Amino acid sequence: MKLSARNLLKGRVVEVQKGQTTAHVRIEVGGGAVITASITNEAVDDLDLKTGDEATAVIKASDVLVGK
Amino acid sequence: MKLSARNLLKGRVVEVQKGQTTAHVRIEVGGGAVITASITNEAVDDLDLKTGDEATAVIKASDVLVGK
Amino acid sequence: MKLSARNLLKGRVVEVQKGQTTAHVRIEVGGGAVITASITNEAVDDLDLKTGDEATAVIKASDVLVGK
Amino acid sequence: MKLSARNLLKGRVVEVQKGQTTAHVRIEVGGGAVITASITNEAVDDLDLKTGDEATAVIKASDVLVGK
Amino acid sequence: MKLSARNLLKGRVVEVQKGQTTAHVRIEVGGGAVITASITNEAVDDLDLKTGDEATAVIKASDVLVGK
Amino acid sequence: MKLSARNLLKGRVVEVQKGQTTAHVRIEVGGGAVITASITNEAVDDLDLKTGDEATAVIKASDVLVGK
Repeated sequence: MKLSARNLLKGRVVEVQKGQTTAHVRIEVGGGAVITASITNEAVDDLDLKTGDEATAVIKASDVLVGK
Repeated sequence: MKLSARNLLKGRVVEVQKGQTTAHVRIEVGGGAVITASITNEAVDDLDLKTGDEATAVIKASDVLVGK
Repeated sequence: MKLSARNLLKGRVVEVQKGQTTAHVRIEVGGGAVITASITNEAVDDLDLKTGDEATAVIKASDVLVGK
Repeated sequence: MKLSARNLLKGRVVEVQKGQTTAHVRIEVGGGAVITASITNEAVDDLDLKTGDEATAVIKASDVLVGK
Repeated sequence: MKLSARNLLKGRVVEVQKGQTTAHVRIEVGGGAVITASITNEAVDDLDLKTGDEATAVIKASDVLVGK
Repeated sequence: MKLSARNLLKGRVVEVQKGQTTAHVRIEVGGGAVITASITNEAVDDLDLKTGDEATAVIKASDVLVGK
């Protein structure tokens, strides 16, 4: 499935931290940058996300702010 | 002002495309990745955003999906 | 690619309306419901979205409000 | 109050799962589809959301991605 | 219908600006603050939004960033 | 850094409630209104957010719904 989201950053999972309902997943993408995603625990289980996995951070253009 | 947003990607504006109310701004960040932001024309004017500017893409962790 | 988004509604595109930068795509999903997505024109071109296409509306759980 | 949100899916709550601050609410809408909403515990209490309630999933068009 | 969204700011519409698909609506809320909402033209028509109307800005808690 | 976000509401933190991964921060802005933000615990620590702090609620125009 191809996505309408304009921003797909490929990388590798460097941390998965689960809370009671919400998890934080950190993905190291190109250039040393680390993207933090806040997703459901259910999604972590469903995708079997764990440190070392190849993963993609997907971000809709309308969710990006610009600072200058 | 320091922001709660977990994802701040510094880069350089490579394109500004204005529509009637909404603009698309492309920022080249580290590793050759280009982030597209959909913001108001008013914001483009207010920040005087133009090609070549240093700018930062700001993304809240809860707006990041993960694909695997 | 499997997505962390909890809500994937499969259906058929019933309308694509492009503005200058932003497009509205309507997808008829199960039960006669029609989902409206506001995405970039670029995404419409990139996915070659047109009436009659099979498509999926993807929605992150944190973007859903509840009314009662 | 009428809402600007383009997507209002009526259904019935099939699960309410509270964490420490964030809850997941599942609403079965038409055609057997189940929508997951991630909202505050406070909202769950405020709306007295529980299994069996009639409820509406409200989604802004700009929060819908399209996959094809 | 009562909403899960934690932030409902009542005020008065001070400007409606329509583009080709997307409109910007400005609502003056308490204390002289003006909230800008980017919504579909269709929503503007559907709610018959115009200057002087009483209206409410509705914002989900997970869409609020904090700066300090 | 100047932000593209159209809505910046200055105020004072009146409550910080941390869960296991996600925190709720309440900011009293002008006119007695209180804005609730759902952000990561990490952001709370990073900004050292506590009751009494001056803080700003930052909201992108595309994340605002309108009710009438």
